[in-house]
Amino acid sequence: MGLPLLANKKQSADKHQKIIEAAIAVFAGNGFFNSTVADVAREADVADGTIYLYFKNKDDLLISIFEYSMDLFIQEAEAALKSSSDPKEKLREFISLHLKLVQKYPDLAQVIQIELRQSTKFMKEYPNEKFFQYLDIVSGIIGDGQESGVFKKNLDPVILKRVIFGAVDEIALEWTLMKRKRYTMAEAADQVCGMIFEGICQ
Amino acid sequence: MGLPLLANKKQSADKHQKIIEAAIAVFAGNGFFNSTVADVAREADVADGTIYLYFKNKDDLLISIFEYSMDLFIQEAEAALKSSSDPKEKLREFISLHLKLVQKYPDLAQVIQIELRQSTKFMKEYPNEKFFQYLDIVSGIIGDGQESGVFKKNLDPVILKRVIFGAVDEIALEWTLMKRKRYTMAEAADQVCGMIFEGICQ
Repeated sequence: MGLPLLANKKQSADKHQKIIEAAIAVFAGNGFFNSTVADVAREADVADGTIYLYFKNKDDLLISIFEYSMDLFIQEAEAALKSSSDPKEKLREFISLHLKLVQKYPDLAQVIQIELRQSTKFMKEYPNEKFFQYLDIVSGIIGDGQESGVFKKNLDPVILKRVIFGAVDEIALEWTLMKRKRYTMAEAADQVCGMIFEGICQ
Repeated sequence: MGLPLLANKKQSADKHQKIIEAAIAVFAGNGFFNSTVADVAREADVADGTIYLYFKNKDDLLISIFEYSMDLFIQEAEAALKSSSDPKEKLREFISLHLKLVQKYPDLAQVIQIELRQSTKFMKEYPNEKFFQYLDIVSGIIGDGQESGVFKKNLDPVILKRVIFGAVDEIALEWTLMKRKRYTMAEAADQVCGMIFEGICQ
């Protein structure tokens, strides 16, 4: 599926990356619960034992896919946000990029949107720092926009970063589950941004 | 936890309701995977066999809790929305009510927000008609508001019903997972409604 090799994992990363890519394909295709480490090894064309050099177990593989995706999203967002200094354009870029990445990597989206949330370990125990780091990009943009007078002063960035993420994430989930796509991600991004920036009232 | 007995389930509903309430308490307390039908029977103070008169198995109990909660939310929303004819007030009422119900029934919220999403059966196979019925309340309000000129004509109610639900649902999820609550549901409802109605731009 040609996932990008992340900058911070360049060293000895080829096999690690190959296993992550294989796990994404296997979990997306068969579901996490129905898949085995042996399935992933076969897909990655490595020995079963090789997987355990890099990952503790199947749950660790799942969490690693999540961390990989968060690194990817954060890295892409930071690169995309450099091109503008306007908070409104930055937020629009962040929202469009998230939806574009979901469309570009459907197997990864399937694992993150569906398989990951079925993991009790992930939902209840995982500290999830990278997710908070991703959310803080949104609260940072809101804070900057409040400072520069672009966004309203009475906004609470702590609440709104979750609200905006929730709005985008629900579209990502619906898109992932939809067999026949009823709208494009570009249309969704326009609707989300229109609502967030200007509201729905006339 | 004193959940309301739903109007459409009045007949022979006492024991059914008692089992649903027990299952909510057990699944919220121990997690769905760690709980057994026998645990639910003990909590409901009925024989194990009694559960199977009403429910096929543990998964059926989980889906029934979801359907119960959707019936409850739809019924409460329909009652609350009667008091106003203004689409903006209706949407505000819908959003506040959803968040209030999450706060009022934390065990139910825990099961719906956390336990249910760990069910492969629910995420992938369940037709989920009641959820779509609930979402259609939102698109109905948006459509009415467009017709009466309160809401913008270029809104796509099919996309926005998911976007608005996602925004509210993410707050419900964060609230459910938050040990020390950093904001009230009333504050969250104000932030969500402010953003949806008027946007975040100055």
